[in-house]
Amino acid sequence: MTKSNHIITRKALESDLEGVYQLIHELAVYEKQPSEPTNTFEDFTQDFKDAYFEVLIAISEEEIVGIALFHDAYSSWKGRMLYLDDFVIKENQRGNGIGKLLFDAYLVEGQKRKVKQFRWHVLNWNAPAIKFYEKYNCSFDDEWITCKLMDNNLK
Amino acid sequence: MTKSNHIITRKALESDLEGVYQLIHELAVYEKQPSEPTNTFEDFTQDFKDAYFEVLIAISEEEIVGIALFHDAYSSWKGRMLYLDDFVIKENQRGNGIGKLLFDAYLVEGQKRKVKQFRWHVLNWNAPAIKFYEKYNCSFDDEWITCKLMDNNLK
Repeated sequence: MTKSNHIITRKALESDLEGVYQLIHELAVYEKQPSEPTNTFEDFTQDFKDAYFEVLIAISEEEIVGIALFHDAYSSWKGRMLYLDDFVIKENQRGNGIGKLLFDAYLVEGQKRKVKQFRWHVLNWNAPAIKFYEKYNCSFDDEWITCKLMDNNLK
Repeated sequence: MTKSNHIITRKALESDLEGVYQLIHELAVYEKQPSEPTNTFEDFTQDFKDAYFEVLIAISEEEIVGIALFHDAYSSWKGRMLYLDDFVIKENQRGNGIGKLLFDAYLVEGQKRKVKQFRWHVLNWNAPAIKFYEKYNCSFDDEWITCKLMDNNLK
């Protein structure tokens, strides 16, 4: 648990999931894809209990103001990784250093597990996010196309 | 285990890992990034034992001629996923339907687990691979940039 200017970061518990789920939907609206999240709250809760993902949260005045949702992943070329699937700071709380606090907590989590690489994706038009990530020593690779196949599109 | 024209597909065992590791390096050469794989065989073996990833293999005349390396993953928007990290058919065995056999086995694996989405990446210049994937009902999304941060580049 890390505290900074009344912001606390810690691992999410089951009782935090409602606030986490709300922020996930807030990001989808920001990313102009409000109808993309189809994951129900019931499945989300069960999958959390089954440890398919973990969440770090930032709390200000007892409210969840940021989330970093991640899971173990693997690269045959590099070895063990952490994959950051979702990273959201509540819109009215941006610019207060909460993103850095939360992203650093994600990196610490990976260091504890001795992962070789951290990986995530960013929308190519999301300039503020790209600017944020540029502060880290990461590479930006637009040569790889993401392929997605939904279960209900299987032939 | 599925058999077709003397090709067998099945889950890899620890004793198969050497052949799997060789094919991973073969793909890196094909993708013009021969020095990118830094994962040692020792770590690769240990991570397999620790279940960080699984592998489906295709076997022809007792030789491993194709691999599909994948792991559980998660999308906050969609739910449970399988992520295909590496998919290789031995160069002299391409065009014989082994790719379809192996990819279909990967899809069956996800259906067993009731995942909502299958995800993977393809290099934007790899026309034969893109053509192969186009036969499936998947989307190709080049709006997301892949960000990678290696542990030894942490500040």
